[in-house]
Amino acid sequence: MTLLDDTLSAIVPASAEALAAAEARQLRLTKPAGSLGRLEEIGNRLAAIADACPPPLPARAVIGLFAGDHGVCAQGVSPWPQEVTVQMALNIASGGAAINAIARQVGAEVWVTDVGVAAEVPEHPGIRARNVRRGTRDFTVEPALTRDEARAALEVGIEAANEAIDAGADVLLTGEMGIGNTTPASALIAVFSRLHVTTVTGRGAGADDDMLTRKVRVIDDALTLHRPDPADPLGVLAAVGGLEHAALAGFILGAAARRIPVIIDGVIAASAACVAAGFDESVTGYLIAGHAGVEPGIKAALTWLDLQPLVDLDLRLGEGTGAALALPTVQAAARILSEMATFDSAGVAEG
Amino acid sequence: MTLLDDTLSAIVPASAEALAAAEARQLRLTKPAGSLGRLEEIGNRLAAIADACPPPLPARAVIGLFAGDHGVCAQGVSPWPQEVTVQMALNIASGGAAINAIARQVGAEVWVTDVGVAAEVPEHPGIRARNVRRGTRDFTVEPALTRDEARAALEVGIEAANEAIDAGADVLLTGEMGIGNTTPASALIAVFSRLHVTTVTGRGAGADDDMLTRKVRVIDDALTLHRPDPADPLGVLAAVGGLEHAALAGFILGAAARRIPVIIDGVIAASAACVAAGFDESVTGYLIAGHAGVEPGIKAALTWLDLQPLVDLDLRLGEGTGAALALPTVQAAARILSEMATFDSAGVAEG
Repeated sequence: MTLLDDTLSAIVPASAEALAAAEARQLRLTKPAGSLGRLEEIGNRLAAIADACPPPLPARAVIGLFAGDHGVCAQGVSPWPQEVTVQMALNIASGGAAINAIARQVGAEVWVTDVGVAAEVPEHPGIRARNVRRGTRDFTVEPALTRDEARAALEVGIEAANEAIDAGADVLLTGEMGIGNTTPASALIAVFSRLHVTTVTGRGAGADDDMLTRKVRVIDDALTLHRPDPADPLGVLAAVGGLEHAALAGFILGAAARRIPVIIDGVIAASAACVAAGFDESVTGYLIAGHAGVEPGIKAALTWLDLQPLVDLDLRLGEGTGAALALPTVQAAARILSEMATFDSAGVAEG
Repeated sequence: MTLLDDTLSAIVPASAEALAAAEARQLRLTKPAGSLGRLEEIGNRLAAIADACPPPLPARAVIGLFAGDHGVCAQGVSPWPQEVTVQMALNIASGGAAINAIARQVGAEVWVTDVGVAAEVPEHPGIRARNVRRGTRDFTVEPALTRDEARAALEVGIEAANEAIDAGADVLLTGEMGIGNTTPASALIAVFSRLHVTTVTGRGAGADDDMLTRKVRVIDDALTLHRPDPADPLGVLAAVGGLEHAALAGFILGAAARRIPVIIDGVIAASAACVAAGFDESVTGYLIAGHAGVEPGIKAALTWLDLQPLVDLDLRLGEGTGAALALPTVQAAARILSEMATFDSAGVAEG
């Protein structure tokens, strides 16, 4: 048995009993029925995830941020030079990026993992060195990864989830950094959602019209070349995925196996969630969609996963920013169920 | 000079220079231009409010929660009995309501003020006793308040803002509790937005179809009876307002006069913001719209105030819940401007 197999065999559906108990409890709390809207839905989901009502407060958050590079950048799918991946990984590890500022505000730790950066990453106390391969191959000419490489990257993510949870984390958030990584994300989402490439492909971190046209063609050609089968998620990852996409899929699987909620971020995380759900669709019960974002692939993926985003702030940065901004709302949703008085206990008349 | 006059004379427009400096700084931070969407806009607004770039972190938050009752409840505009106002004020003061659970999560204090509860409110260390009048009059038959009462309630709000700021608060949030208070809120919004009552009136905390029809008719009749003039905001408050609406308008004016940002909540706060902007339209530069909510009046008021909400979670509770949920995002926006590395300082290549 591999770590991936062990993890998959540990995943069970979220608890319908705890969900029903939470739904019933919401009606006894001192507020008009349903008046907390999406906050109630999230609280109920946390109960189902933990199999406990009220659910525990998801207090200790770790953002698993995985960095990787992409051979498909040779096709001109990003306006940014590839060396920015390592530069930004170091910036994040040093605390200077957007995700660090937001993480400090919401009290989350950022764990940076090099799972597939092309450049040699200098040793840094803030970077976990787990490089599986120095960037993927160009999937317009050959599969991005071998199946073994894809599995190894998935297991880097599972290990990160297990280490974080063993260290006390009770909620995980997804983050990533990788120049060009919206291209494989759109490819993965197209495969699992069965939507056309034009529907799920956007401008990423600044593609202009010509570049967007090229991105769509590049993905379309790759899907024609490899014909990835959504029933074989490892094969899909190997054909058109990325190392950080694989690691994030593993991170999500690892969390679900331990019954820990995962707040997913933008289009990269959404594509990884599609892969994870491709392995076991009950994984979706452990997910909370952090933000809507402007990438069209997010909406397609979330629809396929039956998730609705919590935050919609026109973000298109990635790094885990949308997930981190959603964290306080998720935590508040847990507190609602555990801390609010009931009509009886507070002596409040019912409507 | 009254406290209201003093406060109005201290209000100046938010700083266009600091806004421009913040917009320029955003472009030097290690992220694609504009990739933080609304978060950049909020950070820039904080700079304009504080007249400083980067703006200070709005770290110490006070939720000014004002409670009041409404004579118009005699017309059957709410499914909840009026005694719930005092019961919920006590529940909030004791920490058992939704706003308390959320405030604990986001690190905000809740200051409850009785500005107009109809019932006698028992002494409680968590309730500031500033009752101006035991509920408004029924505005379907006479003005809700005299001009002096409306002014006194406004000044209760100004004093609360000043006390909170003197105690160290650097961001204020609006909250309220009052059975029936969406009815005067819709009336106020109709006056200032010049929209029809049906457009700005919703179900509040659970009105059914018949009750909604009655609400619309009651407001429409009152506007016909009093013909309030939006150029006379004190007169509008007196005719169809509420004591907590007046106090919140004062709370907003007090914050603007001290250059402190105010995060506004749902339809009651939005109506109070319309009143405040009616006194001085530069007040809108100090406002941040916390949430969208399901009450149609919110959208109408925010459009008139030229504000876009940060959070949209189908909330319809009030209490300040939407503002409190938006607080971490506002704080993160300030951190982005003050804590992120620049392309130069981090050695990151530009796209």
